[in-house]
Amino acid sequence: MRTQSCLAIILAAGLGTRMKSQLPKVLHEVGGLSLVGHVLGSVRAAQCDQVAVVIGAEMPELAGHIAALDPAASIHEQVERLGTAHAARSAAPAYAEPADHILVLFGDTPLVTPETIARVRQRLTAGADVVVLGFEAADPTGYGRLLTEGDSLTAIREEKDASAAERAVTFCNSGIMGFRGAHFAGVLEAIGNANAQNEFYLTDAVEIARAQGLNVAAETAPEAEVQGINTRVQLAAVEAEFQSRCRQAAMLGGATLIAPDTVFFSHDTKLGRDVVIEPNVVFGPGVSVADGTRIRAFSHLEGADVGARVTAGPYARLRPGARIGAGAHIGNFVEIKNARVDEGAKVNHLSYIGDATVGAKANIGAGTITCNYDGFGKHLTEIGANCFVGSNSTLVAPVRIGDGAYLAAGSVVTEEVPAEALALGRARQTVKPGKAEELRTRFAAAKAEKAAKQGK
Amino acid sequence: MRTQSCLAIILAAGLGTRMKSQLPKVLHEVGGLSLVGHVLGSVRAAQCDQVAVVIGAEMPELAGHIAALDPAASIHEQVERLGTAHAARSAAPAYAEPADHILVLFGDTPLVTPETIARVRQRLTAGADVVVLGFEAADPTGYGRLLTEGDSLTAIREEKDASAAERAVTFCNSGIMGFRGAHFAGVLEAIGNANAQNEFYLTDAVEIARAQGLNVAAETAPEAEVQGINTRVQLAAVEAEFQSRCRQAAMLGGATLIAPDTVFFSHDTKLGRDVVIEPNVVFGPGVSVADGTRIRAFSHLEGADVGARVTAGPYARLRPGARIGAGAHIGNFVEIKNARVDEGAKVNHLSYIGDATVGAKANIGAGTITCNYDGFGKHLTEIGANCFVGSNSTLVAPVRIGDGAYLAAGSVVTEEVPAEALALGRARQTVKPGKAEELRTRFAAAKAEKAAKQGK
Amino acid sequence: MRTQSCLAIILAAGLGTRMKSQLPKVLHEVGGLSLVGHVLGSVRAAQCDQVAVVIGAEMPELAGHIAALDPAASIHEQVERLGTAHAARSAAPAYAEPADHILVLFGDTPLVTPETIARVRQRLTAGADVVVLGFEAADPTGYGRLLTEGDSLTAIREEKDASAAERAVTFCNSGIMGFRGAHFAGVLEAIGNANAQNEFYLTDAVEIARAQGLNVAAETAPEAEVQGINTRVQLAAVEAEFQSRCRQAAMLGGATLIAPDTVFFSHDTKLGRDVVIEPNVVFGPGVSVADGTRIRAFSHLEGADVGARVTAGPYARLRPGARIGAGAHIGNFVEIKNARVDEGAKVNHLSYIGDATVGAKANIGAGTITCNYDGFGKHLTEIGANCFVGSNSTLVAPVRIGDGAYLAAGSVVTEEVPAEALALGRARQTVKPGKAEELRTRFAAAKAEKAAKQGK
Repeated sequence: MRTQSCLAIILAAGLGTRMKSQLPKVLHEVGGLSLVGHVLGSVRAAQCDQVAVVIGAEMPELAGHIAALDPAASIHEQVERLGTAHAARSAAPAYAEPADHILVLFGDTPLVTPETIARVRQRLTAGADVVVLGFEAADPTGYGRLLTEGDSLTAIREEKDASAAERAVTFCNSGIMGFRGAHFAGVLEAIGNANAQNEFYLTDAVEIARAQGLNVAAETAPEAEVQGINTRVQLAAVEAEFQSRCRQAAMLGGATLIAPDTVFFSHDTKLGRDVVIEPNVVFGPGVSVADGTRIRAFSHLEGADVGARVTAGPYARLRPGARIGAGAHIGNFVEIKNARVDEGAKVNHLSYIGDATVGAKANIGAGTITCNYDGFGKHLTEIGANCFVGSNSTLVAPVRIGDGAYLAAGSVVTEEVPAEALALGRARQTVKPGKAEELRTRFAAAKAEKAAKQGK
Repeated sequence: MRTQSCLAIILAAGLGTRMKSQLPKVLHEVGGLSLVGHVLGSVRAAQCDQVAVVIGAEMPELAGHIAALDPAASIHEQVERLGTAHAARSAAPAYAEPADHILVLFGDTPLVTPETIARVRQRLTAGADVVVLGFEAADPTGYGRLLTEGDSLTAIREEKDASAAERAVTFCNSGIMGFRGAHFAGVLEAIGNANAQNEFYLTDAVEIARAQGLNVAAETAPEAEVQGINTRVQLAAVEAEFQSRCRQAAMLGGATLIAPDTVFFSHDTKLGRDVVIEPNVVFGPGVSVADGTRIRAFSHLEGADVGARVTAGPYARLRPGARIGAGAHIGNFVEIKNARVDEGAKVNHLSYIGDATVGAKANIGAGTITCNYDGFGKHLTEIGANCFVGSNSTLVAPVRIGDGAYLAAGSVVTEEVPAEALALGRARQTVKPGKAEELRTRFAAAKAEKAAKQGK
Repeated sequence: MRTQSCLAIILAAGLGTRMKSQLPKVLHEVGGLSLVGHVLGSVRAAQCDQVAVVIGAEMPELAGHIAALDPAASIHEQVERLGTAHAARSAAPAYAEPADHILVLFGDTPLVTPETIARVRQRLTAGADVVVLGFEAADPTGYGRLLTEGDSLTAIREEKDASAAERAVTFCNSGIMGFRGAHFAGVLEAIGNANAQNEFYLTDAVEIARAQGLNVAAETAPEAEVQGINTRVQLAAVEAEFQSRCRQAAMLGGATLIAPDTVFFSHDTKLGRDVVIEPNVVFGPGVSVADGTRIRAFSHLEGADVGARVTAGPYARLRPGARIGAGAHIGNFVEIKNARVDEGAKVNHLSYIGDATVGAKANIGAGTITCNYDGFGKHLTEIGANCFVGSNSTLVAPVRIGDGAYLAAGSVVTEEVPAEALALGRARQTVKPGKAEELRTRFAAAKAEKAAKQGK
């Protein structure tokens, strides 16, 4: 059987008033990715070859975001807000020549999985004309109930219209639907707005399809997958569910999370085997960690590529462009940005390494600062292999330190240091015996005078 | 109808032996405020115009604390501990001329809300003479049960005296009571101590009031509001409930908390709209954060005023007196104390800015330290607008850097730098070619010698 | 009655394939101690005077670990994996002359308490010949059910063999068993492998013992104690249970944990009274904290001895060998390693103090770095009492600063500073009026040129 083509229409026009935000609702993030970005990823993973996103009027930021994430997606504006069926119709150009399957999903329901979407599609392939995705609700209050007879979905009953027996039904409507493409336009066009709100509701498609003699079925998803988001409290709940998924997957894949609830992943975090993640670690987007590495407590990583058998943290901050070689050590209160730290190198304490390369087995002393910025441009610091950079050194970029060079502690380095050279850039110490008391007397007097002036 | 006057008597004499602490129990804190401070705040918010606090003998620290928080509150000592009614009697001078309403609350039950207190008062206003505040207990074991008939409270039955049917009652006594002022003294004086402990129990007021023909009613509060505290485990449970309230309120008010359970608020934290709080952020007392600001992971704020569209953290520590201007950036491992950082200024890495002003759009390099303390007094560092402070600079206060000045990296600055000047305070670099090997040989030999001495 | 001797046989040969790890399963850790280490500790605490551990072939790392933790334990290899009874037989030399009691426990079931082990032993002492440790399962699915009649255990019924009525039984088999030593070998030898897997199962001991006329009983443990570990998800669940125990014990012992769920203990953490632990604190192994000390948020301690009334953190990192004197202050972004900080000394900001002594009431300025490592050896920095070390100082070890000395801010100190002396090691400041603009012009031009070259 040939592959069935599939159009996913993602409704993303909602303002999200209850979010109390300037941001369009679907641009809020879960796991470091926008809500709509999650849905885009899932429909693509479920082999939807066409994607149409319906956005509201005057949402240029959202349009740009979608175009950046999925350039092949078409974007449609819903100028007025007249209900879900009306929103779906805004994507009419996308289904003028209908795909075999047409799915309608929601930009604010980000956790639906590719597997669930695939099950909806399988039902269509197996003969259903319309498929509604339902879920078993722990508390069905407020949801539309899915009424079924055998394999058929007979109705979606809104709570206000439900009998007592129907209210007892816990199988509820997620809103997500699938259609055989040939029937989509016909059903959608037949939906009217003869209701209290004068809006066009996609849920009416069930009744209409049945009246047209179509085969209407329901498919099931776990409730956690179809949680929608209207408030920031719900946003947090979805984030929690997403994190829970990531943590389980990481552990079952061979990483130890000592306290899983305190580790925060992004949508694209990659962990190797026998990675140990201590409590309180945050992964921003774009991080990969290779086998056998330990990320110690209170570390924060984003855009970083961490090699095998590395120890990072506690309190390591790896920023975008950090590439940490195998066996390297990144210690506490250390920030690495756009820098390569090669195999076995050590940056153990209170340092800022930005726009730099640190050669293999180099040792960067405590308090070392690369001065990468002059107020206008960023410049490179190159530290060779086996270098010893003394503590509290200041490396003024652009500057190159050759292999095996030795920088004295407390030096300010502004010029190239050749390989195997010793460099110093610090003042000689002078000692004034017995002068501490004099100083203390002076400072104490100044303090007293100041206090006197302030009338204390 | 004229406003009813109201006296709140707060019983706070308990030693809290099970806390295993040197501190009087009600001085333990929730959300950065003492337990008794929470109760004081709630009764004032519920328009109690008179407040009396009953403390134990020899608790000068507690007396001082109450006087500082609420100077108008009267403080009464309960010299012996002879039960709750005896404690309330210790406040006799406060009700010699009784207010319209008299409430008895507990200093170790901090989460009772002003709304709940107002409901108790409404019952008094509506005709009840005595009102007992009850709650539906998830597990009533150990609590006194409230027995009601219609609107009347007929008895408080202690568990040991309860019949099987009474034990099945889940409506329980919180201990908090309200009285019409005219009846308070009469009921209180009638309470005896003819019981096993020879103590005077306020709960006896129900039976006495009914015997006096008074109208006794029960009002209801959520169980979470009336949790008392006897152990540190219970203290932690109350803290958790308090934090949960704060998190919900913050999210519903328009702030995103990516991981709400990891954000810790103080009683007085104020957040604007579209504030994003990343995981693991702690707010000490006295923090306000304006609209559109992002507080990144692992940040710690106390006594700080953060403007709009600021980015702070990860690992930002804002201490009392930090005032961060709109659009400023405070980066990682940065401590700001008693300092103003003006609009658009950047302090991005590993710096201590204390007792200072940083002008608009100034850029403070990594590793910059203000030396504000000389061992005796604290001194001011003034950095002008548009200054560039090179990395790893040491600014020895008192010192002033004029607008637009440029400090070379690694400088020690001890004297004023005029506007638009360039200042340097560092040694020139010297390079000794090929000397690194010599040094390594020397250090390796020293290490070997030391090891030999230690007999390794 | 004389003390009964006791042999504990700990089965620890499992590979733990589902852990997806290079590490033998029982070397994974909970609370900073290996799983098998927990079991070793518990059996010793329950007065087991003999311990035998059965490990798999080619696990030298595990053998070494056990020998280090408990040198008196005998170690036995199970070359083939043929079931639990076969594993126990691998320890045959240990029971050739049987102890009064012989217990069989599992190296991957670390939370069983000494109290529970003692209860099993008491049953043996009181007349049982074989005791099986069971638990009331919240969900018994998959567990063997313990079938009892009065005080007797009649059978262990595997789920697949259970009748509907037997499946309803929730009293389940933990696997842990106790035997009167005299009967152990006889029962164990009688166990056969006539089953689908051709393995020797210790659970068959019940049927065999009963057939031999022995008295077989069941003892009960809380389910949380007998959780076994097969996956990292289960490892995390056991860690969570362990942490929960530690937190409760700490609070009931008189420490305040503001947010208990965010505090992570090691197996050997010791806290005094009126210690306050703020949110997000991690205790590695080997930490003790004395009375009245406050550990502020985001602190990380391991191998540290913290005196009374200390304030540490936020963001304090105390590493092995840190010994903090009474009343000392350790502030933010401060790392202390192998160093003594005496009474009342202060190290408040952004410092690294390694291999050092800091005298009483000394004040270590912000950004101070001890340069303890020269690339080969570690050297000592000795700072006397009442010293004032100016901010951003670099102390090149080995070096000694006498009592009461004063180091100017920004100094590099390489030679001894006598008591009461003033030392400086920094360049004089030079100012070039009006030169900032020239510099900015130069940097801006360089940036433009670079951009032009890159074809931007």
